[in-house]
Amino acid sequence: MAAEPVRIDDPADPRIAGFVSIRERDLTGREGLFIAEGTVVLRMLGQAQARANGFAAEAILLLESRLAGIAEVLAAFPPEVPVYIASQAVFDAIAGFNMHRGVLALGRKPSAQVGASLLGRLPGTSLVLAGCGLSNHDNVGSIFRNAAAFGADAVFLDETSCDPLYRKAIRVSVGSVLTVPFSRAMAGEAMLRGLAEAGFEIWGLSPRGQVSVAAIPPARRIALVLGTEGEGLPEHILASFRTARIPQRPGLDSLNVATASGIALYQIALAMGRVA
Amino acid sequence: MAAEPVRIDDPADPRIAGFVSIRERDLTGREGLFIAEGTVVLRMLGQAQARANGFAAEAILLLESRLAGIAEVLAAFPPEVPVYIASQAVFDAIAGFNMHRGVLALGRKPSAQVGASLLGRLPGTSLVLAGCGLSNHDNVGSIFRNAAAFGADAVFLDETSCDPLYRKAIRVSVGSVLTVPFSRAMAGEAMLRGLAEAGFEIWGLSPRGQVSVAAIPPARRIALVLGTEGEGLPEHILASFRTARIPQRPGLDSLNVATASGIALYQIALAMGRVA
Repeated sequence: MAAEPVRIDDPADPRIAGFVSIRERDLTGREGLFIAEGTVVLRMLGQAQARANGFAAEAILLLESRLAGIAEVLAAFPPEVPVYIASQAVFDAIAGFNMHRGVLALGRKPSAQVGASLLGRLPGTSLVLAGCGLSNHDNVGSIFRNAAAFGADAVFLDETSCDPLYRKAIRVSVGSVLTVPFSRAMAGEAMLRGLAEAGFEIWGLSPRGQVSVAAIPPARRIALVLGTEGEGLPEHILASFRTARIPQRPGLDSLNVATASGIALYQIALAMGRVA
Repeated sequence: MAAEPVRIDDPADPRIAGFVSIRERDLTGREGLFIAEGTVVLRMLGQAQARANGFAAEAILLLESRLAGIAEVLAAFPPEVPVYIASQAVFDAIAGFNMHRGVLALGRKPSAQVGASLLGRLPGTSLVLAGCGLSNHDNVGSIFRNAAAFGADAVFLDETSCDPLYRKAIRVSVGSVLTVPFSRAMAGEAMLRGLAEAGFEIWGLSPRGQVSVAAIPPARRIALVLGTEGEGLPEHILASFRTARIPQRPGLDSLNVATASGIALYQIALAMGRVA
C-alpha cells in the first residue's frame, strides 16, 4: 500500500530536491540514484522493488492529474516511499522542462556487490549479452529491451560502456534495465574470460564474423558479445573468440548495434529453444 | 566536379536562407525540400543525384574547417550546386543551434509521380516493406536502414505515416531514405490491396501473428506490413491478410517496431535467398 500523497506547492521544497533540474543533473550523474520516467517504467520499478533485486524507490513525484489513473501502479510500493503531487506549473518548475508524462520516480541503484556476484548466480542454462564500449544510451536501452524480449538471463557491460540507469536509457528500455540483471565494472577482456571460465561459449557479433548467426550451434551457456557502433569489437577480442555475422547486403554502413543485437538474440534464443 | 566554395559571413545572407533555423522549420515542413546532415548522408545524396532517382541538392553549407576533408564527397555534385562555407559562429547563427557536424545540404524531394509509379517499376522478384501509421521519425529512419541492409526493393508508407525526409529520420536512416525507393500517399488498405494485386504475398507483422516469421515461405514477391508501435496493425488489416509474429517471451511490451522489422526482414531475406 502506497503512502498518502503529499501536495507540493513550492518548487524549492527540500522534500523534492532530488527531482530538481533532472535533465541537466542526469548528464553529470548522481551517486547511487537514478530517475525513472513514465507509468510503464514506474510499474517495473515497483515490481523490481517487490522482488527485492536491489532496486528501491526513494520518492515518487506525480502531476496531480495523473494520480487517479495510476493508483494500481502506486499500490506496489511500500508506504515508506513518499508520493508527492504537484500542479503542471510546479511540476515543470521542478523538473526544469515540460514533462508531459507527469510521472517521475527517484530510484536507488543496487549495490556494487549485486553486480559483482551476478555471474555466480546465473542458472546452468544461460543466454547472456556482453557489451564492450557501448557508449550510446539509446542503443543500450534498446539492447536491454531486446534482452528482455528474448529472455536473456543477464547483461554484462564493460567499464567503458555507459550507464544503463541513465534516464534516457531506462526510458528506451521500457524499464527492462530494472528487470534484466546486469553488471558494469570490468575491463572487456577480463569480463569475457570470466564468462568463458564459467562455461559460456563466447560469440562476438561483427560484420566480419566467421559464420552466420543462423549457424551458431545451441549450447548450455552462450554469451553474445556486442561492440560499439562504428568501430565494432576490438581486434584482440575478435581474434580471441569465435565470431558471427548477420547476413546482409554489402554496404558502407552495417546495421545499428541494437537492431543487430535483436536479430542475433532472436536467432540464438530460437536455437537454444528458449522462445517459440 | 563541385562548384567553387563561396564564403558566407552574414547569417542573413539570402543565398543561405534555406538553412536558417532548420530545427524549428523542420517541424513545420517545407514544400518539396529537405535537410540532409552529416558527411555520410551528403555522400548518399550525391550518389542519389548521380543515379537520377529524383533527388537533387539545391545547396550545400559547410563549416569551413570541414571543406578539405570532404572534397571527394563534394566532387559527386554537379557545378550548378552552390557550396557555401562559414565560420563556426556564422554556421551556428544560420542553423539556430550548435551544429557540431558542420555539414548540411538542402535537398529537393522527388516529384509525387516518382512515388506513384513505384509499384510498376519493381522487379519481378521483390521484397518490400509496407508501413501503416508509422508516426515516429526514429522508427521510420531505422526501418529504412534495415530495408537497405536486407536489400528491400521499396518501402510503401500509408498517408498517415510520417515523412521519411524529415531531418531526424534521414539521419537515423544513415541516408538510406535517399537510396531505398519509397512512396507515401495512399490509405493503408488500398495500398495493401494494390500490392496484393501486383502479386505480392502480404504478411502483417504482429505479436498476435498466426505463424512464426521463421515459417514464412519464400515467394517471388513478399510485402512485410508494419503497424504503429503500441497499437499495432488495425484489426481489419490483420483480418484481411496473413500474419506472422516474432517468437519472444510473453510480457507487457513487445519489441520496438524498428527492431521487429529488422528481425522479420532478416528472416524473409534469408528465406528468399537474397542474403547469405
